[in-house]
Amino acid sequence: MEIPVVEKVLQANDRIAEENRRLFQESKLAVINLVSGPGAGKTTLLGKTLHALKDQYAFGVVEGDIQSTHDAEKIASNGVPVVQINTGGACHLEANMVREAVSQLDFARLDILIVENVGNLVCPVEFDIGEDCKVMLLSVPEGDDKPLKYPLIFEESSLLLITKIDLLPYVDCRIDKLREGALKLNPHLEIIELSCKTGEGLDLWYAWLSNRILKR
Amino acid sequence: MEIPVVEKVLQANDRIAEENRRLFQESKLAVINLVSGPGAGKTTLLGKTLHALKDQYAFGVVEGDIQSTHDAEKIASNGVPVVQINTGGACHLEANMVREAVSQLDFARLDILIVENVGNLVCPVEFDIGEDCKVMLLSVPEGDDKPLKYPLIFEESSLLLITKIDLLPYVDCRIDKLREGALKLNPHLEIIELSCKTGEGLDLWYAWLSNRILKR
Repeated sequence: MEIPVVEKVLQANDRIAEENRRLFQESKLAVINLVSGPGAGKTTLLGKTLHALKDQYAFGVVEGDIQSTHDAEKIASNGVPVVQINTGGACHLEANMVREAVSQLDFARLDILIVENVGNLVCPVEFDIGEDCKVMLLSVPEGDDKPLKYPLIFEESSLLLITKIDLLPYVDCRIDKLREGALKLNPHLEIIELSCKTGEGLDLWYAWLSNRILKR
Repeated sequence: MEIPVVEKVLQANDRIAEENRRLFQESKLAVINLVSGPGAGKTTLLGKTLHALKDQYAFGVVEGDIQSTHDAEKIASNGVPVVQINTGGACHLEANMVREAVSQLDFARLDILIVENVGNLVCPVEFDIGEDCKVMLLSVPEGDDKPLKYPLIFEESSLLLITKIDLLPYVDCRIDKLREGALKLNPHLEIIELSCKTGEGLDLWYAWLSNRILKR
């Protein structure tokens, strides 16, 4: 009984996601779906990124959270247009939520839209929202066994940002094992190691993102 | 269309969970549902706990993962009976999965069953599996804003284990803010701070767990 319904929900989502994608392409808007588990540092990285690049490109942000406008308020302090989606319990964003959110942005004037998904290593990856690509974060305290246990997010992402590398001396996480596990699942996965605390690696991420915006 | 079906699934789950609960009570089996985001340290804590207490009490373990037997293998090395549930993509355990798993354990001879749920701060808490109580982990690198963003898991848990406190000098996480946020959501929540690396606080956790086992 359950599976056909879930399939129907996914099919309906895919249809709307395709419409979103067409809309974004017509507007020459680069769209990044930012995914990770809770606390990997999506909002902190986004804040740094906006601070560094907002004078160069016109950013828009969609913040996905189960409830609260905590992250949206942090992001709005950068003077960038942001829309909060509160999923009201749901563990991921769906294409129709994103469409509703972007309708509140003047997105024809934007260069890039960053959608910060709900913190969850599992469900958000199952729902296409019409993005160009998924960028995933994994923080080193989460451990190097995550590719083995949460394969889909590694398979579906274009870029893996290994975050909080300043903590490497204090945690049991082998970057080489993590890289190997991730690349085994997805040989095309690009990988950047960074720390928002020390700033290490941020220039590589900014360059990657700029390239995405210019290529759109 | 979607909501009634989801409700039906939840109702069916609740019915099986109640049957599990009755079965566990008849067997005087204490059952802990261990929940957290990915990488908060459930498996490491469980390994430490089994090592410390397995000669005192008869433990059984159910390991929930999307795929792989990685964690179950780690746990089995302690000589404790363990059953792996692979959810095949699903982001949480359900009552029927747990019933199927425990049927493979000689659970009438056990004192305590620990069910390690899928690493996810959102979905597992929505599904009763027939446990006595939920014990949640939150590691300090995940940050002190989590009660605000993932309220349900704090509301539904009996005990919050704040893990990886050895990392406090290196991360931006204020324990007092975290405690305050958690207790605001759930004034009955017990809280223990610990580190599996230094061993700090583990004795408090062992005492809490022993008390649960003896009270059953």
